[in-house]
Parts: sequence; C-alpha cells; structure tokens
Amino acid sequence: MTFQVYDTTLRDGAQREGISYSVVDKLAVARLLDEFGVGFIEGGWPGAMPKDTEFFRRARTELDLRHALLVAFGATRKAGLAVADDPQVRALLDAETPAVCLVAKSDIRHVERALRTTGAENLAMVTDTVAHFVAEGRRVFLDCEHFFDGYRYDPAYTTAVTSAALDAGAEIVVMCDTNGGMLPSQVTTAIGALTERLGVAPDRLGIHCQNDTSCAVANTVAAVEAGVRHFQGTANGYGERPGNADLFAVVGNLQLKLGLPVLPDGCLEQMVRVSHAIAEIANIAPETHQAYVGAAAFAHKAGLHASAIKVDPVLYNHIDPSVVGNDMRILVTEMAGRASIELKSRELGLDLADHPDAASRVTKRVKDLEAGGWSFEAADASFELLVRSELPGAGTPRPFALESYRVLVEHREDGAVVSEATVKLRVRGERIIATAEGNGPVNALDEALRVALSRHYPELRGFELADYKVRILEGSHGTGAITRVLVETADANGGRDWTTVGVHENVVEASWHALVDALTYGLARTPKV
Amino acid sequence: MTFQVYDTTLRDGAQREGISYSVVDKLAVARLLDEFGVGFIEGGWPGAMPKDTEFFRRARTELDLRHALLVAFGATRKAGLAVADDPQVRALLDAETPAVCLVAKSDIRHVERALRTTGAENLAMVTDTVAHFVAEGRRVFLDCEHFFDGYRYDPAYTTAVTSAALDAGAEIVVMCDTNGGMLPSQVTTAIGALTERLGVAPDRLGIHCQNDTSCAVANTVAAVEAGVRHFQGTANGYGERPGNADLFAVVGNLQLKLGLPVLPDGCLEQMVRVSHAIAEIANIAPETHQAYVGAAAFAHKAGLHASAIKVDPVLYNHIDPSVVGNDMRILVTEMAGRASIELKSRELGLDLADHPDAASRVTKRVKDLEAGGWSFEAADASFELLVRSELPGAGTPRPFALESYRVLVEHREDGAVVSEATVKLRVRGERIIATAEGNGPVNALDEALRVALSRHYPELRGFELADYKVRILEGSHGTGAITRVLVETADANGGRDWTTVGVHENVVEASWHALVDALTYGLARTPKV
Repeated sequence: MTFQVYDTTLRDGAQREGISYSVVDKLAVARLLDEFGVGFIEGGWPGAMPKDTEFFRRARTELDLRHALLVAFGATRKAGLAVADDPQVRALLDAETPAVCLVAKSDIRHVERALRTTGAENLAMVTDTVAHFVAEGRRVFLDCEHFFDGYRYDPAYTTAVTSAALDAGAEIVVMCDTNGGMLPSQVTTAIGALTERLGVAPDRLGIHCQNDTSCAVANTVAAVEAGVRHFQGTANGYGERPGNADLFAVVGNLQLKLGLPVLPDGCLEQMVRVSHAIAEIANIAPETHQAYVGAAAFAHKAGLHASAIKVDPVLYNHIDPSVVGNDMRILVTEMAGRASIELKSRELGLDLADHPDAASRVTKRVKDLEAGGWSFEAADASFELLVRSELPGAGTPRPFALESYRVLVEHREDGAVVSEATVKLRVRGERIIATAEGNGPVNALDEALRVALSRHYPELRGFELADYKVRILEGSHGTGAITRVLVETADANGGRDWTTVGVHENVVEASWHALVDALTYGLARTPKV
Repeated sequence: MTFQVYDTTLRDGAQREGISYSVVDKLAVARLLDEFGVGFIEGGWPGAMPKDTEFFRRARTELDLRHALLVAFGATRKAGLAVADDPQVRALLDAETPAVCLVAKSDIRHVERALRTTGAENLAMVTDTVAHFVAEGRRVFLDCEHFFDGYRYDPAYTTAVTSAALDAGAEIVVMCDTNGGMLPSQVTTAIGALTERLGVAPDRLGIHCQNDTSCAVANTVAAVEAGVRHFQGTANGYGERPGNADLFAVVGNLQLKLGLPVLPDGCLEQMVRVSHAIAEIANIAPETHQAYVGAAAFAHKAGLHASAIKVDPVLYNHIDPSVVGNDMRILVTEMAGRASIELKSRELGLDLADHPDAASRVTKRVKDLEAGGWSFEAADASFELLVRSELPGAGTPRPFALESYRVLVEHREDGAVVSEATVKLRVRGERIIATAEGNGPVNALDEALRVALSRHYPELRGFELADYKVRILEGSHGTGAITRVLVETADANGGRDWTTVGVHENVVEASWHALVDALTYGLARTPKV
C-alpha cells in the first residue's frame, strides 16, 4: 500500500497573504520538503507566474531530490482553444517536470458562471488536456475545484468530470474542498457515494482540504481512512484564508495514530526542523501552539502533575515528542533542548555526544540567546560557529577585530537618497579604515567591510549577499522591540549557501552581527586564494 | 433536543502560557461569553486559585448573565479523607454556583501511579463527592481525565468510573481527551462501544477535547454526531499545548453545517466581536487565519476570479460571513485587476464604480506600484490615500513638505550603538529643523518627525507605532534588492489601527514613506485638538 504525500506549500500555500518567496527561497523550501520525505512537490504555476517559470528552470540543475518528484501546476486548456495552441499548456510542458497537476472545474455552476462555458466543453477541456500530457509522457493529477459542493449540487456532472479525467489517463483525480466547508463525516459519506457511482476504487482519488471549518487535517485523515492514497497539504498549513491541511499534523496522525507508513524511514524526526526552517524562509513566526511541531506542543505547565510527568511522561504525552524531533518541556520557557542541539550538531558533522561539558555550555548559550530573541533554526552557519567555539580544538579564527563603524543615510534636497558607511578595523595587526556607499545602510556597511578586508582576504570577493530577512520581534508598543536579521550568503565559486543570524534592538547592529558571522564562516571553509 | 454549550476559557483555557487574567478581566470575559450565548461558564477553581475564589465572590453581585450559568471547577475528594472534611470540597461549595464540575481520574494507570491510590478508593471518591454536591442541591458534571486512553487500556475500569458518577447523580459524565491524541473516527467508535457497555444513551455523556492532533474541533463535532449533547471548548481554542477545541469553530460547524440549534437566537452573529474582544483581554493578537472569525477567514486573493466573486460570492465562501459577524475581504495583490480594486474601494466606503476614469487611474497606479514591489494587501490606509488622491474632491491634505533628512548609526569604540536623525520640513509655511535619538534608525526618524510636527499637530501625540514589519524583496544577488516596510499605527484615543506601506531599495527611505502615510492618514481622520 503506497501513499502519495503531495506537498503544495510552494503553489497553493504561497496564496497566504504576506508570503512572497524568492526563487532562492523556493529552492530552499523544496530541499527541506524533500528531507521531510514527501513524494511530490508542487513547485508553482509556470507561465502564470514568471518566478515559477524561473524556479523550474533552475530546479533542473540546482535541485537534487532524494525522495520527491517535482510537479508543475496549471489549468486545463482554455475553452474553445485547441490544447496544443494554448500557451499556458505549452509553459507547463516547458517546465519539464515528470508530473503535472491540472486544475479543472467540477461544479457545473462554476463552469457556467465563472468559466462561462458549457458543461460539455469543460469535459472536453479535461479530456483533451489530460490526454495531451499523458501523450507527452507525463504523470497527470487532476485537481477538481469545488468538488464537494459540485457533487452535492449535481453529482452526475461532477462524476462525469472525474470519469473523463480517469478515462483520459489521469493517475489520480483530486477532490478539492476549495472553500473549506466540509466536515469529516461528510467527506466519508461523499467518497462512499462517489466511488459507488463511479465504479472505481478510492485509491484513484486524492484529497485536498482547506481549513475553513478548522477540520482540514481531520477531513484529510477521514479521506485516507475511506481508502484515498493521495493527499495534499502544505507545510504548517499555510494557505489562503484559514489555510490548507497542515501536512505535518496529517502525516503525524497517519503515521503515529493509524500506523500507516506514509514517509520513508528516518524522515519523521525531521518534522520540527523542517517546519521551523520553512517558517523562517516564509518569514512567518513559527506557531508556538501548532500540533506536533510547536515549541509548546509538549509543554506542560508545572503544577498539578509535574512530578508525575517526570516519572511517567508516556501517561501525559500523546506521543513520544522525539519521534517528530520535538522535546517535552515541563517548565515553560523559550528553548530548544539538549537532545535537539546534539542532533543538529551531528548533522553539521560535530559530535557533541563525546563532549558532555561542551554540550552543556552550548545548550546554555543557545537557551540564553533564544531567550533574547535569537533563533538558530534557519541559521546553521551561526549555530556551527557557536558549537565550534565550545568544542575543544574546533574553533573558527576571527578574521578581524572591530574598533568602530558609522553609517549615514541622507535624503537630500534634490530627492536623492544616499547611504555611506565607514568601518575601522584591526586585521592581522594592521589598522584599516574604509568607506563605501551602498543602496541602503546595510549594503553600505557590507561594502565597507569588504573594502577593508579585501587585501588580506581576497577570497571573499566570491561571496555574495543572496538574501536578507528582517523580523521585528514583539516589543511593547513599538519601543524596545528587538530586530532579528537573517543573512544568506552565496559563494560564486560554488558550494551551498549559508545563513547567519544577528539580533539587536538596532537593525544595523543586528545586520552587522549576521554579516560578520557570514564572512567568518565563509572564510573558514574556503581554501585560501 | 437541548445542547449544553460549555465554556472553559476561564479555567482550562487560562492554562495557555502567557495568559494571566485579573479578576476584572475574568468578569469581562464572562460577560462576553454570555453575549455569545453559551449555556455554562466554568469560571475557575475556587480554593486552588485565590483569584478564582475572588471571581466567584464578585460574580454574585457583579455578573448579570442572560444565557449562561456559572460553574465552579474542583476535584473529587482526597483519597482517605471524608468528603465533608475536604477543604477543597468546602471551597467549591462556598463558590455558591448552581453547578459544579468535578475532575476525576478514569485511567487506572493514573489512579495508581499519579494519585497513588487504588481503583476501588477512586470509585468511592467519585461516588462520595458527586453525592455530596447533589445533596447540596448542585447540578454536577464529572470531567473524566484521560478518558479515552483509560478506556483503551482498561475499558471495564473507565466504564466503572462513569457508572459510579451517573449512579451517584451526576448529570453528565464528560469524556476528556486530556492529552489530545484522538482522531474523529476513534471518538465515534469509543462512544459507540462505551454506550453499549454502559447501557445508557449518549446524551448522558459530554466531550472535552485538546488539539494535539489538530483535530479538537472535528473530534467534538464527531461526538455530537454520535449523540453527545454536552460539549466543552474555549474561546479561540486557548489552552495548554496546542490548545482546546475552539468553541467558535465548533459552534459554527454545528449550527451552520449540521443545522443544530446550539445557540439562542441572535447570538451567532456576535461571534467575531466576542472572539476579538476576548483576544484583547487575554492580550493575544487575534489570529488572522482563524476559521470563521479571523480577519482573513473570508479574504480572497483577487485576480483569477475577482469578477466571478463579485457576481456570485456564495460560490466562493463556505458560509455567508455576515452570519457570524465577519466580512468578505478582497486582497489587493500582485494579480490585482480592476474588479478587485473596485470591490476593495467599496469596502473602504469609496465608490469607484461611478468614476470610471478614476478607477482606471487607480488600477494603473496600483499595477505599476505592485510591479515595483509595493503591496497593498495588508496596507488599507495607504491604499485609501491612493484611491482618494484620484477621486475628484476626495483627496487627503499633506501635513508637511520634506526638504531633507539625515540618519546616523554609530557603533562606537566603547561598544555603544547610537542612532540619531535630523529632519528639515516646511509645515504651514514655517521651516522646521528637528533632531532626535532612537533605538534604531527608523525609530530615530519617527521621533524626529514627531518633534518637528508636534506644535502644528498636537493630536499626533496619540498615535503609537504598534508594529513594524520589514521584507526584503528579491533583487539580483543582493544588489538592487528592494525593501518593503509595513507600519501599523494605533491611536491611543481609540478607533481601529491602520497600516501603511513603503517600498524603496533603502530601508530607511521605505520606512519614511510608510511613516508619512501613517501620519497623513491618521491626521486626516482625527478631529483637530
């Protein structure tokens, strides 16, 4: 019994207001989803969104997925147009993915009122487009929009759309609860009625739920219990309105509550790490109270049963938190536990298990820093620098010592906006003063730092600031807020990008920390020129 | 068929980390819950929590509830103690509520390992305590902790606890999924098996779910579908770990999806108001994406189907948002078309439909700005300023003209980081120069602007920077990146917060745009001092 864990974080999940991924972000999210072991990653809508076209182009050379297949999303051909002449269909083929997912109308009211065509033409659109992609050697999934409402209003028509797709060679027809209004018992009943009417087994159907009744996870689980094998969701439930089914909770429930092997071995414990890293990339604070992955998901308020919990945690937790990479917390504090710090260090090739004192020091420093607003979840390079600084003989050399810096931003009378930075450093015994301009205060500071270091460290010319993210952490009424900055650096000479973090009430100083970590880390791992 | 809508926001919901209600807060929350029409309000644990004892004392004179009965929460008597001698039982009586809810162990493992007593003594504790309160004229509910785990492990014992309570006169025995590990199908199966074993109808049972599988709402609905008439939940799902069943979603689903009349007439449309007011009292930002009540619960990204949504909203929303007191909101986004801009303007009280030329100009400006990285989907105030500037006779006066500004950030040799800004403005013909410090460059600029304007516009002293968000939009490899800033401003004199946007390659200049929009918008709608 094989399940299709189908992720649409990068397509439907990106509909959540406020999310705006860069192409580099999308590549990073895809890598994380693959590490979580999903079977399919719907990467976007090529043709409709230029960024998505670019994503699929770069994915061909830059993504090396172990578990997942990439899927490009698109629509059935336009009404009245031959499928081969539809530029949107062409763009979808040009994405060169092994599978495509086509969205189709399956509610006759939407066909007539929104698409403004006939039921018969919509069926032909489904047949033609599915057959076209099958003939081109693609696996085809068909997303039926407003499936359940359509089926309730006119079961014969919605069934006809489903049959048309299956007859034309679609691998799976996905029942989409597009407006999210379903309850689990209704999903169960609808699938029973549909499969009887269709005369096919439920394993030819897929499920895609929105969370407008707060039941998206339960609806997805109900569909799988009814025999569906293909289920769609998004990381952390991101999506339009109340969001999509949270893939982490769905997978946790199927694997741990129903005992269904939906992920490859070794992937389940990546859940918390992947969830938090995607949140950082999406620039959304991880939800503390999220099921399975939230920092408070296994946090028990001390009091009533604290000592009993300590003795018998299995009596109080619905699962062992470590199987999804989470920790039990008795006292409510900000923090990652020692176990996850050791796990993460091991991933970076640093074994803390053999150095219990260093592990304690790292754990304490991480706890203290996290209490001050730092977060290492998406900043592996800063985390590695921290771990190395505590591991005997593993420290990273500091390339320079700062004396002072100054940054100036002016909006002049003629309307020009200019930024200028001056840094004063000591490098290998030499005092260096350098000034540079930039298109903003942080860019100017970065440029001045590079000018100052370039003679001693020519190899840093290959480092590029690939992404820069800012998050304002909660303060009281604007004052006293803390700024967290993530800097992603790319190496023009190849190798993976690395991410560093800085935290300060002043955005420039926070950026300075992250920039210095970025250069320190990059210089340590780059061969000298 | 009567339902018992049982709210435990003030007792179990207060277990959420970070929540700490004062007695006045608790009284205010109780009034709001009553306006929402719940049948029972569990107000706290008198005796165990001094604040709760005080709450019940003041409630007797200060609460005038129309729909709800107050319930005091407590535990069954201590092992080995006569019920009349138990001070905790005494405190519960002294709360003088018409009903009490007693928590009892129903999992034999918890009885033996956490309570450290025997199964037989625990049964006697249940019988004695229930009978005692019944004899005192109270309605009695019994919360069975870890009910489902207990039933799975030893159904005979958990059934015996249930029987003991019902035999002693308990009105309802509540099945508590204390660690939140259940799925809806498992709830359905367990209730069927239990009622058969007990030989009682399911309407003698109640349900209390935690959200650790992200299924608390669905589990509660499943129990009601299985015949349970008493269900517990909390406002907005507040509670320990991933929280409790969100009472708003549960009620919305039961009333609007299953057609069950669980609330008195006229209460359902209070949902959004009550939800947000309780969030304010709990000091938790209302969750934008929450089902039914979130600000984004009915927000559609326009583009694709805007024109269809306008014609046929019922095809796209799972319910009419107004029945729960919510609104449909159209987001102005990347893919914005003219239809969605007209819809959005109408929401703001500006009718573009009568001004086709102005509508065309607004559409073109929005598209051009969005191509340059602007986004109005979360910045209604900036959007309104833009629309007004194109609508004949609706423009907003500009409070000042900028000559220049200068911002300086220094990291000094002693490690101190300082920010200072100077602005030069022309206000009502007068040239003003002002300088201020801040904890970062934007804060310094905001302060300097306020100093410069304060004499001419004293009313802006009431404006507070409530939130500040920064997003770096993709440039090509770090250079030429664009920064988007969102500023949320609150008015200390009351009224809704407003959000403005600014975009520039320089974060300081982007912030400047958003700050100026924020003051311009705020001054235009605030009465002159």
